[in-house]
Amino acid sequence: MNFDDILLKKRNGGTLTDSEIEFFIGELLAERIPDYKLSAFLMAIFFRGMTDRETAVLTAEMAHSGDCNDLSVFGDLTVDKHSTGGVGDKTTLIVAPIAAACGCKLAKMSGRALGITGGTVDKLEAIPGYRSTLSADDFIAQVQRIGIAVVGQSGELVPADKKLYALRDVTCTVDSIPLIASSIMSKKLAAGSRNIVLDVKCGNGAFMKSLASAKALAALMVEIGRQNGRRVTAVITDMSAPLGRAVGNALEVAEAVALLKGEINDSPLYEVCVVLASEMIALAGQMSVSAARAQVLNALQSGNAYKKFKEWIAAQGGDIACIDDTSALPLSPLAYEICADTDGYIAEIDAENTGILAKATGAGRVNKGDAVDPGAGLVLTHHCGEYVQKGEPMLRVYGSTPALPALAMRMPRDMIKITDKKIQPPPIILETIRQ
Amino acid sequence: MNFDDILLKKRNGGTLTDSEIEFFIGELLAERIPDYKLSAFLMAIFFRGMTDRETAVLTAEMAHSGDCNDLSVFGDLTVDKHSTGGVGDKTTLIVAPIAAACGCKLAKMSGRALGITGGTVDKLEAIPGYRSTLSADDFIAQVQRIGIAVVGQSGELVPADKKLYALRDVTCTVDSIPLIASSIMSKKLAAGSRNIVLDVKCGNGAFMKSLASAKALAALMVEIGRQNGRRVTAVITDMSAPLGRAVGNALEVAEAVALLKGEINDSPLYEVCVVLASEMIALAGQMSVSAARAQVLNALQSGNAYKKFKEWIAAQGGDIACIDDTSALPLSPLAYEICADTDGYIAEIDAENTGILAKATGAGRVNKGDAVDPGAGLVLTHHCGEYVQKGEPMLRVYGSTPALPALAMRMPRDMIKITDKKIQPPPIILETIRQ
Repeated sequence: MNFDDILLKKRNGGTLTDSEIEFFIGELLAERIPDYKLSAFLMAIFFRGMTDRETAVLTAEMAHSGDCNDLSVFGDLTVDKHSTGGVGDKTTLIVAPIAAACGCKLAKMSGRALGITGGTVDKLEAIPGYRSTLSADDFIAQVQRIGIAVVGQSGELVPADKKLYALRDVTCTVDSIPLIASSIMSKKLAAGSRNIVLDVKCGNGAFMKSLASAKALAALMVEIGRQNGRRVTAVITDMSAPLGRAVGNALEVAEAVALLKGEINDSPLYEVCVVLASEMIALAGQMSVSAARAQVLNALQSGNAYKKFKEWIAAQGGDIACIDDTSALPLSPLAYEICADTDGYIAEIDAENTGILAKATGAGRVNKGDAVDPGAGLVLTHHCGEYVQKGEPMLRVYGSTPALPALAMRMPRDMIKITDKKIQPPPIILETIRQ
Repeated sequence: MNFDDILLKKRNGGTLTDSEIEFFIGELLAERIPDYKLSAFLMAIFFRGMTDRETAVLTAEMAHSGDCNDLSVFGDLTVDKHSTGGVGDKTTLIVAPIAAACGCKLAKMSGRALGITGGTVDKLEAIPGYRSTLSADDFIAQVQRIGIAVVGQSGELVPADKKLYALRDVTCTVDSIPLIASSIMSKKLAAGSRNIVLDVKCGNGAFMKSLASAKALAALMVEIGRQNGRRVTAVITDMSAPLGRAVGNALEVAEAVALLKGEINDSPLYEVCVVLASEMIALAGQMSVSAARAQVLNALQSGNAYKKFKEWIAAQGGDIACIDDTSALPLSPLAYEICADTDGYIAEIDAENTGILAKATGAGRVNKGDAVDPGAGLVLTHHCGEYVQKGEPMLRVYGSTPALPALAMRMPRDMIKITDKKIQPPPIILETIRQ
């Protein structure tokens, strides 16, 4: 077997066998494939696609290319959750303690912000003292004790994906659905949970702009999970507007805490969290989604989810005083408001441009490895469909740079659209795909 | 402008502007494009293709990437001829002196054998003493004096093609019609002739296996010439069987000499040579093809073409005694015959396998830079359609390796097919495409 034959076969539209894919990943790890052959192969996959079987086998081979978490001690109760990335998406902070409060085991590895997408680890690190690195033993012990631990991704998780992704990033081969699906799912397989709920974001603030592409990606990831012995549910959620009001690390922690405290109980963010947590519990507990939903609402109303959140944060060294009173969380010193120039209903809040603005305040990073400003970001005062009066603030921006007003003014005027007709905001849950 | 945008545009099916293509070749020559981006781009071109305009501009930019011959001193009389490569194709040795005898100017650079395709320079060098390297001044002076000079390709001809081809060769992106066409035509443009006749081979011994692909390549090359101010005619000729009886360097020189001496005047090789030479003279002399054909036949029958051939070989140092008596040409010491195992008509001679066998005798090269055995190769005793008796030789193989019988026996038994019905051999000229 040699890689040139595999490249030619894929270029000509052939279907690779399991052993050809295994051979490919072996050669990749042994660094026997020059980058110029690899990028030609990735471009051939971009055009020819891969069958579900090819993608599932590729994903498994990638997952096994490095360290894999062994969570077998927790039986079938482990559950992971992954979002394909959006603006203002703080759902992990909320659904993880809900699920743990309902008996699920969350041994979770999360990512950092990149592009306009936030990262759970950056958000958690906005809580003074929070440690996102734990030894393997401490990680497992914490999950055993309180049902939840969330750390950053370790270096040796899925090295095959790291190598492929670095090359895809510079050869215009990122947006291939089988390659995206295998990249995401290889990390989920290696992370070791038996149950996985995927939040596939769809809309202008997301990587998947159309419902059709979001559905294709979601269905493929669910199938990859099935072929690799994992229970997977994918929920497709709207990302045409930011999720919730806050975009920025400490600002999002505060919003998550408010929801867990019961202060937010009717909003798109609330609905997404309840749906995702219900799907997680339904999978891990093998119960109906409606039974799981009842458990979720109870965990929120009883305060058990909030209690679990504090247990978790305390276990990883976070300052609980900042949770009890979120005004103690970091907040950047400068603020600037953008006000409505007319009366009317908020018709649209452009998620992509909101994400670009939040990143510019210092809440995100331009280059991998940059520091983020934990107190920077923005707060939207209104959701889509709500009424705003002329002169009333629509957006409050926080940051440490004197250029803050200039940054805000540079945003398109129609980033937030106002209409004089009462409008129905778009549904937040677009579709759910189960095995 | 940056290359990443150009790569993305092509990947998405866009049409590159003239200035984007110019920028691409500039970046390529400046070595500012890493190979892994270049190979992704070549694969995107493989899938998306290029418009005629894109291909013509790419070809011109490649042609100007290195040295270009200035043949303006010869006015409109310069004519070049190119074959896409076949088995037993010695037409240049024949048509060049015919055209020169009719007043055309042939300042020609030729290639060496690669794969199963022979190379004119290797054939000429089978004539003891022939020098395939001339100084630029001597090259032009010889064309002025006798109308013809044939040398090997110089190192600085079309460096952009050299770089692209080396990468295509190892990334499964060779067989893209726009890339093939621009590679061939960039060298023809740089070589400087005003008129160009292309022999596009079609069949199992050729790079283009189907008539449809041969026509697409031929039409594209004719159009590239038009857009770059050259007169181009493409003749599509059959390469399902080898052209002529001899395959191998000195053996093919002997066959070419026999044709020029008038000993061969009714065979597929004869017809291809008359047609190609007629198209060359028609373009250079701006006359009808039938008028040109009359000149060709006259040049052959009068002996003027043969006289011109000897003048040419002598001018480049070749031993004329070997031309007057071709039995003095090198011949490898070992010979082996394959005989018919039944009576009947020759139905097929598989060009590809014949080429593989000839290469194995030492007539071709396995790696670039290998020496060839000038006296190795094979001679077919019969053309398609001719009758053979059981036990009569069909093929005589020559070489210097004791493994010669084993090599011959390893060939498929049906390389030469015999049938009991009289058959009509396929036409040798399949189509002619003019501007």
